[in-house]
Amino acid sequence: MNRREVTSGLAIAGLAAVVDAKAQSPAQPDAPSFAMLVHPKIIMIDLVGPLSVFNLTGGKIHLVGKDRTPVQTELGIPVTPTTTFAECPRDVDVLFVPGGLDGTIAMLDDGETIAFLREIGGKARYVTGVCTGTLLLGAAGLLQGRKATGHWYIRDLLPLFGALRSDERVVTDGNVVTGGGATAGLDFGFTLGAQLLGEEWARRAQLVLEYDPQPPFDSGSPAKAGPALTDDVLHRRARALAAAREAAERAAARLKG
Amino acid sequence: MNRREVTSGLAIAGLAAVVDAKAQSPAQPDAPSFAMLVHPKIIMIDLVGPLSVFNLTGGKIHLVGKDRTPVQTELGIPVTPTTTFAECPRDVDVLFVPGGLDGTIAMLDDGETIAFLREIGGKARYVTGVCTGTLLLGAAGLLQGRKATGHWYIRDLLPLFGALRSDERVVTDGNVVTGGGATAGLDFGFTLGAQLLGEEWARRAQLVLEYDPQPPFDSGSPAKAGPALTDDVLHRRARALAAAREAAERAAARLKG
Repeated sequence: MNRREVTSGLAIAGLAAVVDAKAQSPAQPDAPSFAMLVHPKIIMIDLVGPLSVFNLTGGKIHLVGKDRTPVQTELGIPVTPTTTFAECPRDVDVLFVPGGLDGTIAMLDDGETIAFLREIGGKARYVTGVCTGTLLLGAAGLLQGRKATGHWYIRDLLPLFGALRSDERVVTDGNVVTGGGATAGLDFGFTLGAQLLGEEWARRAQLVLEYDPQPPFDSGSPAKAGPALTDDVLHRRARALAAAREAAERAAARLKG
Repeated sequence: MNRREVTSGLAIAGLAAVVDAKAQSPAQPDAPSFAMLVHPKIIMIDLVGPLSVFNLTGGKIHLVGKDRTPVQTELGIPVTPTTTFAECPRDVDVLFVPGGLDGTIAMLDDGETIAFLREIGGKARYVTGVCTGTLLLGAAGLLQGRKATGHWYIRDLLPLFGALRSDERVVTDGNVVTGGGATAGLDFGFTLGAQLLGEEWARRAQLVLEYDPQPPFDSGSPAKAGPALTDDVLHRRARALAAAREAAERAAARLKG
């Protein structure tokens, strides 16, 4: 991909403002390309965490939807796809799937979306996702025999798709790179950035985005938060988690069938 | 603020999808209200990090702009204000200002925006911001005699506004709570969440958003990245940083004048 194609791609994607961010990072002669799935009810930070890092590569980024209808997020800020399933290049470097429990549940039964992920994922250099979105990679048959993680809510469902459940925050198995829930997209993004463009690039990106996390509490995983708080959250999400299990079982049956 | 007002506020703000997130967090009888400034060229994660946490409070969130014209972000995802300066309640609990170097530079010379921040900030329970946005708090006279931080790019400019420069990632001085660059908005968000709704609430929010960061490299601050990488980034941003200094000096002169 030459510089002109990159620039043209950025313009098409409506990323004119990326120029500012690009000034912070070296021009990449072989900038990677990204297909990031967007569907209704994605969790905004699942998308924005990784995208904040990917954007610094200067590569072409497709926000890919069935069509260009804006999708709603939990924050009330809609995201408009830049590229349709039909338009998306079949040779992107990175396929990425964000999460959002209710949105993932709906997409697990969406044959068109699953077929798109299977096609693009079968050819991409890297097959990636975070949060509940990794279930969709599983439903597309992209995690068979691979270590994978996701939001702690749904990690136990990954083996339905032949994946080997991991409780790591970011896990790489061959060309499959997955991350945990929501904020794990940042750790995931810098990890994948290092694989794409090298450690020095990733270290610079961490400095630019000042990624030196210092959480006020040590409570970001079930093990650290403890059983009382974990059970409380699971209780509040019980109905959606039951629906996720049922949808994942249906999707797994179709995958085998 | 009663439940009906909160619900009505959420509907007005177009945050219907927040219902999903609210299910994860307890209904708050006295949910806090937020005025979050949006202006052209904000950095998306400066807004989305804190907003992902604030959204779990169930409180009313105003994305406040001069008018309802969508503003562009560096990611190419526009953000549409939900509330104009004129409409914004004068008694919100939290005033928040995101950053974005080029956008901040423009706003430092924008009298209407500075006057708005001065008015709302003078009455809010908490005056807050992250990244380069803390310069705008300074220009509005809200940091005089207060410890404050911001993106490491611009911390040295904070004393122009009478602030006491801090190099902490999140710093609280009275009712002023500020955070470092970009990704610091998450640490900031959970810290402010604990001040608003208590530690248990913040610990639960960290668990829901799985905030258990594990950065792949130890490179998120100048001290950790080292002088070579830091100088490289400063060199790439030299023109914008010079413009920021000039704009901050003009704003400081107006503040004193």
